[in-house]
Amino acid sequence: MRRYPFFLLSFALSASIMGAVWLSAPVPENQDAVMIKKIYDSALKEGHCYDRLRYLCKNIGHRLSGSPAAEQAVAWTKKEMEGLGLSRVWLQDVMVPHWVRGDKEQAWFQDASGKKVVPVIALGGSVGTPKKGITAEVIEVKKFEELAALGEEKIKGRIVFYNRPMDPVNITTFTSYGGAVDQRGRGAIEASKYGAVGVVVRSMTLAHDDYPHTGAMRYEDGVTQIPACAISTNGADELSRRLLADPHLKFTLKMNCQTLEDVPSANVIGEIKGSEFPEEIIVIGGHLDSWDVGEGAHDDGAGTMQSIEVLDILKRVGYQPKRTIRAVMFMNEENGLRGGKKYADEAKEKGEKHIAAIESDAGGFTPRGFGMTGDTTAIRHVQQWLPLFEPYLIHFLKEGGGGADIGPLKEQGCLLLGLSPDSQRYFDYHHANTDVFEAVSRRELEMGAATMAAMVYLLDQYGLK
Amino acid sequence: MRRYPFFLLSFALSASIMGAVWLSAPVPENQDAVMIKKIYDSALKEGHCYDRLRYLCKNIGHRLSGSPAAEQAVAWTKKEMEGLGLSRVWLQDVMVPHWVRGDKEQAWFQDASGKKVVPVIALGGSVGTPKKGITAEVIEVKKFEELAALGEEKIKGRIVFYNRPMDPVNITTFTSYGGAVDQRGRGAIEASKYGAVGVVVRSMTLAHDDYPHTGAMRYEDGVTQIPACAISTNGADELSRRLLADPHLKFTLKMNCQTLEDVPSANVIGEIKGSEFPEEIIVIGGHLDSWDVGEGAHDDGAGTMQSIEVLDILKRVGYQPKRTIRAVMFMNEENGLRGGKKYADEAKEKGEKHIAAIESDAGGFTPRGFGMTGDTTAIRHVQQWLPLFEPYLIHFLKEGGGGADIGPLKEQGCLLLGLSPDSQRYFDYHHANTDVFEAVSRRELEMGAATMAAMVYLLDQYGLK
Repeated sequence: MRRYPFFLLSFALSASIMGAVWLSAPVPENQDAVMIKKIYDSALKEGHCYDRLRYLCKNIGHRLSGSPAAEQAVAWTKKEMEGLGLSRVWLQDVMVPHWVRGDKEQAWFQDASGKKVVPVIALGGSVGTPKKGITAEVIEVKKFEELAALGEEKIKGRIVFYNRPMDPVNITTFTSYGGAVDQRGRGAIEASKYGAVGVVVRSMTLAHDDYPHTGAMRYEDGVTQIPACAISTNGADELSRRLLADPHLKFTLKMNCQTLEDVPSANVIGEIKGSEFPEEIIVIGGHLDSWDVGEGAHDDGAGTMQSIEVLDILKRVGYQPKRTIRAVMFMNEENGLRGGKKYADEAKEKGEKHIAAIESDAGGFTPRGFGMTGDTTAIRHVQQWLPLFEPYLIHFLKEGGGGADIGPLKEQGCLLLGLSPDSQRYFDYHHANTDVFEAVSRRELEMGAATMAAMVYLLDQYGLK
Repeated sequence: MRRYPFFLLSFALSASIMGAVWLSAPVPENQDAVMIKKIYDSALKEGHCYDRLRYLCKNIGHRLSGSPAAEQAVAWTKKEMEGLGLSRVWLQDVMVPHWVRGDKEQAWFQDASGKKVVPVIALGGSVGTPKKGITAEVIEVKKFEELAALGEEKIKGRIVFYNRPMDPVNITTFTSYGGAVDQRGRGAIEASKYGAVGVVVRSMTLAHDDYPHTGAMRYEDGVTQIPACAISTNGADELSRRLLADPHLKFTLKMNCQTLEDVPSANVIGEIKGSEFPEEIIVIGGHLDSWDVGEGAHDDGAGTMQSIEVLDILKRVGYQPKRTIRAVMFMNEENGLRGGKKYADEAKEKGEKHIAAIESDAGGFTPRGFGMTGDTTAIRHVQQWLPLFEPYLIHFLKEGGGGADIGPLKEQGCLLLGLSPDSQRYFDYHHANTDVFEAVSRRELEMGAATMAAMVYLLDQYGLK
């Protein structure tokens, strides 16, 4: 019987990881296992993460960049961090885009059987429609390539309906998101090139339901800006069926959104100063802004509250870091990334040395591992620590991944780490009205915070030589 | 710097697993990876598991052994399996206990500040109270040992309140359940020995909420049977606080439950006959009965619908097994295990050869691995297959585990495998009104079914020599 080659591969890999253990120093001590146990125990027994998330979701709610709620969130998280007895808490000013939805969008289609209202939501950054809306025939496509084949003749004056579903067979749902989100991001640009008057995009979710999911879209200089919305997956299925029966059905879309002048906002930053190497900075963070739907619970209330909790845990277990540990609530990840860029720019200007940054922006679900981007030696170094995580069912420290907000730090040689929670439910909630506090499990959220804190502890102990 | 010993251990273990690969035959072929991909793809793209669970939960609902709903579930699952074109579908008769709740239980306590109603639920198997209820003072304990210290003097005529919470620090919540459930199972026996008139047990959950969780309790010959109920965790916390202020507060409990005569019911069995070794049987199963609360969605609608789905998947991907694959919907796991015992007894009588049995009874959450009980050589043999599971984020095939219903097959040399889903949310729903269809994620459920099907495929291909 032929032996399956991955056993060879696995053996080789295993040998090389083991080899790395013997060759590179320093390696974890037994005291590390003890400290990590303390960290998880504290998170699970006396964590504040879940209660803080409740406050953020229920007392502040969704908080799009530029909105009054976003500013409330800035003030409140600053106050929360000030209550932790950190070395320093401050705001880092940043100008952010100010897109507003206006009155709720409306859409329906009309065929021989009558008028059918469908659940839609304007995509973030879209222009609105005229007051009375736009009404046009609909042309359904799955890919941009089909637009060229159809040409201006079939597209001009029509609404392009992008209806390629996220592929359900990928085990990591982010892979499926990556394979479908071009429709939302560039759909308006590509359709407009052929004279389309609007765009309707199937929601980026694997759920079959009636909730439309918003998210960022872009325009391009020189291409007419046309309105773009997302439609729920059930709505998309129905529209597709009805188009088969009547290719000339009329679709009406009314959207009242617009982009106003940029407004001032801020990243919220808190740090514990390092006792030995204060100039070496380890960042943990998530983004404080959210889309203007639901409560931004998983995206990314979870990540921000987990980041604050990391500092809270270190305080509770009485750990004084050697390096400086900084929690950053980034502003404007969803529609501009201005906070992430500003943070990296200022770090560069000041000549700060960021050795590692951990982002949590994939939901408050059971943590499964980390993905890493950066120097190969640094990644191998971190991978040695896997046995310390396995008792907590953290099973991978793999190459690839990081996070949008910490991304700009990469060029400064900072190792980027993205917390990878279980992804099965993430897109049920992502950018939709379903992303509320009740969708978050207390223990899953706390486990994520503990996992980040354990990684911070190891990075602090051993650095990244 | 001292090198941490688990790296040595890890290296040794790794070397020995690798060694096993070279020494034992057969090992998986590349075709296995292809087939397993087909299995997962089919589950995620065209699975029926979730829709069947919806029917079971919404059209039949909870289904305690002996109830009309349990019989409806028997008839419906038989019909569902008959629709799959299996080799054979049949009922295996079994007599089951018939405990009924009667009118909803009521409880309140009274102190200087007035009457406070608390959410309670009779434990399964408990006797009822007299019509007017029982009213008594309450004595709170955390452990059975405290009862001996208090003695008959302090306990006689009182209600014993067991209030030891599940320990939140365990990563696997079943460990915490195991550490607290003696209070529910034996609490009435131990309290009654000292003359208690009733028992109130803190609900077996890590959630802080108002839902009481039922579950099985026992009596012992020669010890007076006293009524026993569970109280919600919030209720338990409040009762504890109020007892501190007023140790003489009066607690009233009314329960209308009783045990009637045993009634006939059945296990539901469907099988695909093996083409090469039909006498070698591989079982997959869960239990069809549930407690009489919620909809028995995670416990264990999920496991039963996943077991049917395994056969459905094998049919859909066109796989003809060499060995006989049997899905068993066991009856009466919750309060008697009669179905599991009957199945094993009949297998023994008939001289059937069960090589392996897989149970799913830990909720329809993201699968993480399997736990196994049986012959060490067989376990090592299965552990070789881990690399085939890792692309699906299944990270362990560990020793220990199995399942209650398949447990009685152990003495016949059958390898027992328990599917281990992520356990963080399980006890939020377990035996409570919260265990409803909406608490189950479609993808998580489907992933579990696919994982079971992949294991069945490998067991079928390679047997357990």
